[in-house]
Amino acid sequence: MIRFECDYNTGAHPKILEALVNTNGEAHPGYGTDPHCERARAMLRELCQAPEAGVHFLVGGTQTNATVIAAALRPHQGVLAPDTGHINVHECGAIEATGHKVLALPPTDGKITARQIDDFCQNHYDDPSWDCMVQPGMVYISHPTELGTVYTLAELEEIHAAARRWKLPLFVDGARLVAGLAASDITLADLARLADAFYLGGTKAGLLFGEAVVFTNPAIDFEFRCLMKQKGSMLAKGRLLGVQFEAFLEDNLFLEIGKKEVAQAMRIRQVLLDKGIPLLMDSPTNQQFPILPNQVIDKLGEKYSYEFWCKVDEGRSAIRFCTSWSTRDEDLDALLADLKAL
Amino acid sequence: MIRFECDYNTGAHPKILEALVNTNGEAHPGYGTDPHCERARAMLRELCQAPEAGVHFLVGGTQTNATVIAAALRPHQGVLAPDTGHINVHECGAIEATGHKVLALPPTDGKITARQIDDFCQNHYDDPSWDCMVQPGMVYISHPTELGTVYTLAELEEIHAAARRWKLPLFVDGARLVAGLAASDITLADLARLADAFYLGGTKAGLLFGEAVVFTNPAIDFEFRCLMKQKGSMLAKGRLLGVQFEAFLEDNLFLEIGKKEVAQAMRIRQVLLDKGIPLLMDSPTNQQFPILPNQVIDKLGEKYSYEFWCKVDEGRSAIRFCTSWSTRDEDLDALLADLKAL
Amino acid sequence: MIRFECDYNTGAHPKILEALVNTNGEAHPGYGTDPHCERARAMLRELCQAPEAGVHFLVGGTQTNATVIAAALRPHQGVLAPDTGHINVHECGAIEATGHKVLALPPTDGKITARQIDDFCQNHYDDPSWDCMVQPGMVYISHPTELGTVYTLAELEEIHAAARRWKLPLFVDGARLVAGLAASDITLADLARLADAFYLGGTKAGLLFGEAVVFTNPAIDFEFRCLMKQKGSMLAKGRLLGVQFEAFLEDNLFLEIGKKEVAQAMRIRQVLLDKGIPLLMDSPTNQQFPILPNQVIDKLGEKYSYEFWCKVDEGRSAIRFCTSWSTRDEDLDALLADLKAL
Amino acid sequence: MIRFECDYNTGAHPKILEALVNTNGEAHPGYGTDPHCERARAMLRELCQAPEAGVHFLVGGTQTNATVIAAALRPHQGVLAPDTGHINVHECGAIEATGHKVLALPPTDGKITARQIDDFCQNHYDDPSWDCMVQPGMVYISHPTELGTVYTLAELEEIHAAARRWKLPLFVDGARLVAGLAASDITLADLARLADAFYLGGTKAGLLFGEAVVFTNPAIDFEFRCLMKQKGSMLAKGRLLGVQFEAFLEDNLFLEIGKKEVAQAMRIRQVLLDKGIPLLMDSPTNQQFPILPNQVIDKLGEKYSYEFWCKVDEGRSAIRFCTSWSTRDEDLDALLADLKAL
Repeated sequence: MIRFECDYNTGAHPKILEALVNTNGEAHPGYGTDPHCERARAMLRELCQAPEAGVHFLVGGTQTNATVIAAALRPHQGVLAPDTGHINVHECGAIEATGHKVLALPPTDGKITARQIDDFCQNHYDDPSWDCMVQPGMVYISHPTELGTVYTLAELEEIHAAARRWKLPLFVDGARLVAGLAASDITLADLARLADAFYLGGTKAGLLFGEAVVFTNPAIDFEFRCLMKQKGSMLAKGRLLGVQFEAFLEDNLFLEIGKKEVAQAMRIRQVLLDKGIPLLMDSPTNQQFPILPNQVIDKLGEKYSYEFWCKVDEGRSAIRFCTSWSTRDEDLDALLADLKAL
Repeated sequence: MIRFECDYNTGAHPKILEALVNTNGEAHPGYGTDPHCERARAMLRELCQAPEAGVHFLVGGTQTNATVIAAALRPHQGVLAPDTGHINVHECGAIEATGHKVLALPPTDGKITARQIDDFCQNHYDDPSWDCMVQPGMVYISHPTELGTVYTLAELEEIHAAARRWKLPLFVDGARLVAGLAASDITLADLARLADAFYLGGTKAGLLFGEAVVFTNPAIDFEFRCLMKQKGSMLAKGRLLGVQFEAFLEDNLFLEIGKKEVAQAMRIRQVLLDKGIPLLMDSPTNQQFPILPNQVIDKLGEKYSYEFWCKVDEGRSAIRFCTSWSTRDEDLDALLADLKAL
Repeated sequence: MIRFECDYNTGAHPKILEALVNTNGEAHPGYGTDPHCERARAMLRELCQAPEAGVHFLVGGTQTNATVIAAALRPHQGVLAPDTGHINVHECGAIEATGHKVLALPPTDGKITARQIDDFCQNHYDDPSWDCMVQPGMVYISHPTELGTVYTLAELEEIHAAARRWKLPLFVDGARLVAGLAASDITLADLARLADAFYLGGTKAGLLFGEAVVFTNPAIDFEFRCLMKQKGSMLAKGRLLGVQFEAFLEDNLFLEIGKKEVAQAMRIRQVLLDKGIPLLMDSPTNQQFPILPNQVIDKLGEKYSYEFWCKVDEGRSAIRFCTSWSTRDEDLDALLADLKAL
Repeated sequence: MIRFECDYNTGAHPKILEALVNTNGEAHPGYGTDPHCERARAMLRELCQAPEAGVHFLVGGTQTNATVIAAALRPHQGVLAPDTGHINVHECGAIEATGHKVLALPPTDGKITARQIDDFCQNHYDDPSWDCMVQPGMVYISHPTELGTVYTLAELEEIHAAARRWKLPLFVDGARLVAGLAASDITLADLARLADAFYLGGTKAGLLFGEAVVFTNPAIDFEFRCLMKQKGSMLAKGRLLGVQFEAFLEDNLFLEIGKKEVAQAMRIRQVLLDKGIPLLMDSPTNQQFPILPNQVIDKLGEKYSYEFWCKVDEGRSAIRFCTSWSTRDEDLDALLADLKAL
């Protein structure tokens, strides 16, 4: 089975693994207070051009989303999000479990717009029953989105401005940020400037696990370590996160991984377009969503793993192919050849 | 100002008030353990033809919804509801505050169908990521709905069957049940037979306050008094609820109130139809939703209170008129005359 | 049965009931936006000498405690309280249900001291693991306490100062505040000056129900109405609370009720002391806790209701007698005669 | 600095690390559905002589405790635990954040007894206000305890029987279970027989991270994966847990690690006893708690790391030395020499 169903089905990138092996014998205090974490924090602050930013390392995306959002909201507030957002669909109600409603907006291509934020808030406060309703308390977007699409810098600036207008902190889920950085004009420094909180995802980018949260809004960062501990998102051997992120950030390995996986995905996209195979979403990143006849999908499934995405009509469905740091060119070539032969 | 904006803007029905005054000097133990509560429970069980049912008296609708739903769900489960449902819109996130997601379905006329329940659950369990998603754990509907519409007995039977198919308890919000009983073929006994939990609302039907929950599913009823206490929905002077419900149920006062307010509302509806004024929703109950030009709405507002419901287009909006046990015929006549004169 | 088991086993004080009856036919908007609530707010602000204070009317004590504390704390914070405090013992985990730990201190006579607050916080922040522990976020006390004891003004000033030192808002549960006002040198104005939040309880002081929360700390008051709605503590017919509190505050009826019930309780206390009957707690308020042989308790129980408090040793237990606005002198005389005859 | 402050300050045991390196290139589906997890589950079931047991792999202890307890309790229930228990002290309120109170019992040497459970429950249900109180819903103990002490099999049998009497599931926190297995007569099979849920901790026993939960009570196991996802305790690259536990269980490596660290700790204990140095707790496991003069502690701190435990009196404090799989004999010899030289 050649695996394309997700970007986290192998272990760690060799440089990450090497760093873990090389530091395995070192003894350090726990919970992220070790020198590796300190150095990784400093590296990330510098890349973000945000010397005052708070940086925390968590294990996984769902816990990161739930912990950051819980830190930002008061009990009667909810978080605005595209209805396809990870927090609204694929986290088993992690946000609601902390007491908060996800205020879902109908997205375009997985993305929401500044206009949608403005309209939602305007309508909300215009409603005479507004104080019987969940108050908007934060804006959550993903870059790239769960459908592989990305924001432009101009769009992100507008969303930032809309969020500011309504006094809503902006939180960017960066579980696949390496692909977003490769496929858009948005940089880490832009994110640090425009978002109150965002994270650089490691789990889906070649780490064993790990998400690096950057806070530029100190109010959300207040005693955030306590929330991490409470929500089970503080790793005892925190140095594992520091060690991995040091290697990930060193010589811009994270950017290199993003470029590589996106380049591979663009080869898939080109073949699909050349063959006239419709795409559920035209994604510029490492997730590709062809719509194919079900029997073709079954046939491909004998050799390649993919993620079933959704039924499109009686005879056809959309599936997802993911490339990753570990996708081998020979495996990709095989897939492309089989797609061309359809 | 002649008030039509809601059905809870006056005090108590004279018979309810009289019962409160007459029993004011009695001394009873608290928390619903007094003889008035006991008698009201027995009366309600008999009306429901459900001698084994659990009956609890709570103060208000939002707390009732949150307490019942929290009693029924495990932490990873959510509650299916129409997206216009009270729990999804007008309770400031009370359900989410207990940790649970409202799984909103697009309703038809405020109502959901058995087919929607089947489709939702089928799609849910067909999704390979189903275990990363909130699990459906209950079905919530309102009768009448927040838009004044009612279910037929046949529809309720089908919803009951669909809920059973997916092992979901069925909960019916009866905040305005007196109107639902007056305007549909569904009886209290039907509700007790088809719902695992429902309530007969008093606040919007002439009590000072009070909602009577009926449980036919003992699993939800398990130590429910503890949940009531925890959620702040157990009244210290619980006898006030018992006394009011005794009077409410005595000689079917509750049915009489429902019939009266619905009959008055039907007079409004007839005038609106006669005048060719469009209705946002054709409601057979005590809420009527005419769509009117904004300047007409403003003009009416000088004399009558109504609830602004929603903007329809640039020049028109929908408003809500409610009748209630306390709506006087002379006030209604005035409104009807002014509507006819439009 | 002559009832002494609690102070909420009858209906409303005649003046309260009269006000409800007289205003029953009035029509008002709901949710506490009516003129009666407005006037009662103004009266209370004036009594508190706190013209800027926020005032909200809730239905019961448990919901008031949970709603106020949820409004004040961030998710990783807990509330310091005496371990006999109502929130720690008799609310079915209402505080924990909102996600917060009660940090229980061993009280002296139901009271905690400024020194205990200082010691707890000093030890907390001295602990190298402090950030793996629940952070102190508020101080909760009751006046009078659940054991009938009261703070002196000097003690309250010290507690206020200690809370300020550690940046903890101070919240005073005033479920029986009328007795506290009668039995201590603390006034409403003192409470408004020294507490960030407190409430004047009505349920246990002659109202049908109702607690008036006073906020002098605007941060806790922020959109508090939304929290009330979410926690089910906003009454639809909010005017019932306004009407009752108007009558309660008018001509200082609340002070009169407190004095009357405390004076009656002091008669019980004197008889107990004269008879050499030990007291579990020497209470200056309307709760009295004699320690009596079990057979005496059973004998008394044939004629009087009381609350069983706790077992003291094999042969003896403590019980509680409560006086209230509705305790009749002839009933009290009967009890005193029977106690003297022991 | 020679580190003795905890048992998780180095990386992974060489055999664990080797397994991770060897399998790094393999591609597997995520979330614990891979063959390594399957095999590790089978190995653990066999060691537990519990072929039907549910086995789940989580990342850390706090999240494991919170997820398991949330799965077991209804909203109005709490968990009985020793007041020194990890869930009551060192998890930043993780249990309360899921809505549940920790019902703390005063322990003896970190342990609670069957008698304490019986007494608590008897008193609880004897209290006439029991339904205003948090209901006991589970028993939580740690083996070994946070103070290094262990239960005997006889004690565990009694606790099991008491829990059964009150219909409370029993949950055993095994964060340091390898030490408990080495220092008591309790086996994995005993735990599987007597506990409804327990876990074999990896983080503090030579894994990079990981806790293996064993459920013999299917009611708690119901859709537990959904709770794991919701609580952020499901690792995307779940295979990392499977791979580590395979190596951990292979040839009883876990038992070997426990024996080794306990044997080293016993050497520390013997020196302390020989020197007449008092122990805060006489621990038979890998944590040792000498009471030393503060200046001695400071002096030791120049060369060795330890955990400050608590102040004992003005001049003396208790500190903790931990041994672990990675404690080198030469480092231990150095410490012992310095202790002997005091």
